[in-house]
Amino acid sequence: MMFSRRLSSKIFLVAVVLVVVSALTLVLAPKAITSAQSGDTSDWQTIAEQRGLTEADLRAAVMTYTPSGMMDEYVMFASSGQAGQVLAIGLPSMRLLRLISVFTPESWQGYGYGADNNSVLKQGYIDGQPILWGDTHHPALSETAGDYDGQWLFIGDKSSGRVAVIDLRDFETKQIVHNPAFLNDHGGTFVTPNTEYIVEGGQYGLPMGGEYAPISDYQTSYSGMITFWKFNRDTGRIDMDQSFAMQLPPYWQDLCDSGKSVSEGWIFCNSFNAEMATGGIEEGNPPFEAGVSKGAVDYLHIINIKAAEAVFKAGGAVDVNGFMVIPLATSIQNNLLYLAPEPRSPHGADVAPHGDFIMVGGKLDPHVSVYSFQKIQDAIAAGTSETDTFGVPVLALESVLETQVELGLGPLHTVFDDQGYAYTSLFLDSAVARWSIGAEGYRPQDGWKLINKTPVQYNVGHLAAAEGDTASPDGRFLVALNKWSVDRFLSTGPLLPQNLQLIDISRPGDQTQILYDMPITGAEPHYAQIIKADKLHAWDVYPEVGWNPTTQSVDPNAVTQGTEGVTRDGNNVIVRMTVVRSHMTPEHVEIQKGDHVTWTITSVERARDATHGFALPFYNINLSIEPGESINFEFDATRSGVFSFYCTEFCSALHLEMMGYLMIKPD
Amino acid sequence: MMFSRRLSSKIFLVAVVLVVVSALTLVLAPKAITSAQSGDTSDWQTIAEQRGLTEADLRAAVMTYTPSGMMDEYVMFASSGQAGQVLAIGLPSMRLLRLISVFTPESWQGYGYGADNNSVLKQGYIDGQPILWGDTHHPALSETAGDYDGQWLFIGDKSSGRVAVIDLRDFETKQIVHNPAFLNDHGGTFVTPNTEYIVEGGQYGLPMGGEYAPISDYQTSYSGMITFWKFNRDTGRIDMDQSFAMQLPPYWQDLCDSGKSVSEGWIFCNSFNAEMATGGIEEGNPPFEAGVSKGAVDYLHIINIKAAEAVFKAGGAVDVNGFMVIPLATSIQNNLLYLAPEPRSPHGADVAPHGDFIMVGGKLDPHVSVYSFQKIQDAIAAGTSETDTFGVPVLALESVLETQVELGLGPLHTVFDDQGYAYTSLFLDSAVARWSIGAEGYRPQDGWKLINKTPVQYNVGHLAAAEGDTASPDGRFLVALNKWSVDRFLSTGPLLPQNLQLIDISRPGDQTQILYDMPITGAEPHYAQIIKADKLHAWDVYPEVGWNPTTQSVDPNAVTQGTEGVTRDGNNVIVRMTVVRSHMTPEHVEIQKGDHVTWTITSVERARDATHGFALPFYNINLSIEPGESINFEFDATRSGVFSFYCTEFCSALHLEMMGYLMIKPD
Repeated sequence: MMFSRRLSSKIFLVAVVLVVVSALTLVLAPKAITSAQSGDTSDWQTIAEQRGLTEADLRAAVMTYTPSGMMDEYVMFASSGQAGQVLAIGLPSMRLLRLISVFTPESWQGYGYGADNNSVLKQGYIDGQPILWGDTHHPALSETAGDYDGQWLFIGDKSSGRVAVIDLRDFETKQIVHNPAFLNDHGGTFVTPNTEYIVEGGQYGLPMGGEYAPISDYQTSYSGMITFWKFNRDTGRIDMDQSFAMQLPPYWQDLCDSGKSVSEGWIFCNSFNAEMATGGIEEGNPPFEAGVSKGAVDYLHIINIKAAEAVFKAGGAVDVNGFMVIPLATSIQNNLLYLAPEPRSPHGADVAPHGDFIMVGGKLDPHVSVYSFQKIQDAIAAGTSETDTFGVPVLALESVLETQVELGLGPLHTVFDDQGYAYTSLFLDSAVARWSIGAEGYRPQDGWKLINKTPVQYNVGHLAAAEGDTASPDGRFLVALNKWSVDRFLSTGPLLPQNLQLIDISRPGDQTQILYDMPITGAEPHYAQIIKADKLHAWDVYPEVGWNPTTQSVDPNAVTQGTEGVTRDGNNVIVRMTVVRSHMTPEHVEIQKGDHVTWTITSVERARDATHGFALPFYNINLSIEPGESINFEFDATRSGVFSFYCTEFCSALHLEMMGYLMIKPD
Repeated sequence: MMFSRRLSSKIFLVAVVLVVVSALTLVLAPKAITSAQSGDTSDWQTIAEQRGLTEADLRAAVMTYTPSGMMDEYVMFASSGQAGQVLAIGLPSMRLLRLISVFTPESWQGYGYGADNNSVLKQGYIDGQPILWGDTHHPALSETAGDYDGQWLFIGDKSSGRVAVIDLRDFETKQIVHNPAFLNDHGGTFVTPNTEYIVEGGQYGLPMGGEYAPISDYQTSYSGMITFWKFNRDTGRIDMDQSFAMQLPPYWQDLCDSGKSVSEGWIFCNSFNAEMATGGIEEGNPPFEAGVSKGAVDYLHIINIKAAEAVFKAGGAVDVNGFMVIPLATSIQNNLLYLAPEPRSPHGADVAPHGDFIMVGGKLDPHVSVYSFQKIQDAIAAGTSETDTFGVPVLALESVLETQVELGLGPLHTVFDDQGYAYTSLFLDSAVARWSIGAEGYRPQDGWKLINKTPVQYNVGHLAAAEGDTASPDGRFLVALNKWSVDRFLSTGPLLPQNLQLIDISRPGDQTQILYDMPITGAEPHYAQIIKADKLHAWDVYPEVGWNPTTQSVDPNAVTQGTEGVTRDGNNVIVRMTVVRSHMTPEHVEIQKGDHVTWTITSVERARDATHGFALPFYNINLSIEPGESINFEFDATRSGVFSFYCTEFCSALHLEMMGYLMIKPD
């Protein structure tokens, strides 16, 4: 299981580059899109004829499909990738219900545009540097006993290695944390079965503590890392003092999943770049794509989180840049970490509903590899003398592997249903493989075997199944998160949407069927989870007038009707305002250039959907003030003039009249 | 037509406030949403039973409605309100195809996150102040001979009074302009029939030139304004030197529309607050909502744009803060501006397809008022001795009114179809009125009359009909842009989506039918235009490798393969990089803290949809690099450490390996 990293000559290097790159170019480029696969561009009439319907019948079918006011049964929470937000999408209608602002400022909600002085966004600043976007990857719903409980949503930022907490009572971000021991991370979040921890996986190796180290010292100075964020349900916040990380070898740790039921207390993460390639195509080295893919195997990381917690609590972690990290040597010494070989460059380590198997997609291998948790436990108990470069024990593949199932090209990610099937995305095949789990409690009668492949359009990444990451998946619906749409929708120029395809998985055997193509614009929904809608209990309006969503309590500074006004203390001006259909009080605010303004707006509305906006030109202030909400913001009056502030939500017939003037006198 | 603005006493003021506010509260609050109106929460099975279908048949209907790959027939360009962007939505599927970044930074597209050093966004800064969001209101497609030509899209920012130009070859924003004579504006954009001018309407009265003036001097020191932005089709840009504005009375000018055919060369704008109310509820004055609505009439503004252009070219405009403005007195003297009374607080002045009528919604009046262009011309020719406070000639209502049609409560905005019907949104009724235009060339046999009302859910603002603002509307589809969704979708907390409802208007008489409810999140699509999809000719990929989308030409600085590298001159570092599946060249960039970095990335991809991203943590850089595109960005290396840059678009099976390291050595 050891790889030689001493390469004999530059000539060999160049040869490797040429051979590997050529092979990869042929094999790994997305499948050519032929015209035979291309979209049907017919109009309604043609489609109706093809289906043996009149156009009127076809339109009637539309009415049948989307009866006005029909509620969806599920909500899919999807990342929005490099847009830095979260999307809430109704299923089966595939309608976008809500954009949730997380890492990137967003003016509609006032997120980064004044609301609560941008306090949540500021929590995510690093070393005082405003970080004004994120690359959201893996949303994770909070769980109770391994099932989604509908209370919280967590999401990671791959780019800057941060994690956000979203409260599902109001679908708003409440907290952003960053592990200062590591500059960037994968941002994958995964929860333990009772949400004790939010697990943040790693990605590219980096020097710890945000330090500089030359790439030539990669093996000695760079590390991998996994962070365990302790979640406190009472406060609804991550508790930084109870959170810790583990240093890992500088492989590129990727997706993780928590054990559940029999495997509760363990975490499984795939990794790639066990080769510890360091790139440098411009220097004649193998480029990353070749170097990282050279070896035949990578490593599944098997982590005992309960034992790690005990080591952390016993003082076994060290302070790295203000965060507690268990050093790799300590993890080895305390049996916190084991490795098992996995097919090269995997992308996915997914725990089966009963917690008994871990499915690993091979990406550059046509199989999904199924690891048995019982066998892993037996192998650990039996002991192993094999280790990796760093002394981490390596369990023999044959001792832990239950089976391998050949599925097709580019297996990435596996999800589950209620019928004993697993579904694995095949990136290179552009297909979703349904396969049977040939074990007790699943579909033993079918054995471990491929059932069918549903072609998708195109280049599927992750999958999401209804309640699919829980201990009791619902089945029924599966969404393929396809990376390319190419010709599926009208052209919108060189930049095209991604394509989410809804697949009916309610019937057994090969009866899977694509129901709907949903274009997704505004960046890639990398990963998603689907929850039954009746588990969500969002507030219709904020519980009381004067509510501060950051603290989720009445703001002592909230303004009551009759007490509005403008007061001054030196050059500090305080504006206290209420809003209600259809006026703001006060309507005139007159101040001096050079004043520092602290402004509070409280909505006294109690009617559902009676949201007001507040726009203040020039000063980059725009707020969304939902019924009952109270917001504080501040700014410096740097420019004199007359500024018309106004409501940005069309709240009533006299909405346009809901305005006022900020008059700033020159010095 | 004159209103007394001298009020006898404070007591009278307070009485007015009480009476008007009470009346408005009763009359103008959106209709109560009763449970009888609320959404059908049934599941698929129930819906199937209601329709006399099996659930399997219902699912088959879904397949029929949305055959995978079916192309839409129309594209609707909608503003995204205070999100500051534009949305492209396919019709009839009502799928969101593309988010176009305009006024608000957006990390997915790198807009404000480094792309071309944020040059387009920076054009919209005011007095050196970064303006980092917009309130997009009225998109306007470019026209040739009064029909959409599919080449350009314009959109205004109400908050900061700016206008943006979007190129429909790549759906990207190319220019942002601001009229420095006015700090903020309505941001409505409307084009003349051959796109000679983009007309930007006004909104709240302000002192000209961005100056301070006390509100007590409103009538003497505040103005309204309309701006005529000259568009140059050859350069694809607004020509600032050929653009000008007209000072208007300090009424609140609102929506405008260009004359066409017989009325080409004229512009019609409604207005409200002819009362010139100045608010001040906190001082015992009538609040704006009451004061602005007190009078029985407001003014339709009738502007001779060709004559205004001649005055501007003859030197009749004055320089206000660097922009040429025709003073109100000059306009009066040169017969550029006329007023006609209109029902109080209108919201909409919409020119009929043949250019012969202008429809004005009354908002606080149950009628739509139809003005005859011929009668307006006759009245102007006959002359009038009546003027407003400022000496602007006022045409007698009876001399210019063709008819009034009683439609219902809260008429706002009127659009047109191909059958001689007009459609007016009724905000307070939550309905769309279809009515017949009883004139030659329309539906003279039906007379001027209401045909039916289609209830919508809820509080409809603007309407959009297929090619509905052109000289030859298509009919078929109409979209109601409803401001509130309340109970139509699953709850997403106190902040809910808006609701766009697709209405089938293809059949005559009362056979209008709602087809689809589309929730819209991420702010209000205030206004929209719908174009036939085959008029759009977007590029599949950029025409040549090395393309700079800002200039729409090959960037002389583009990088070719084999010439990549890192060079240094003092502390200025230049990085020249290419990207292609699946590597970046170079992969290692080593610099010093304190360096200023200029970085160019060129995609050498030619395959459709082969977009790469480029994320650089900590430095707020994220780019979208479409096939052929070349991007320049700069930053200061203020923090040392190792930063993993990577591709943010899942471009190939080896996408995760498409990365590199920026290593910044400490001083």
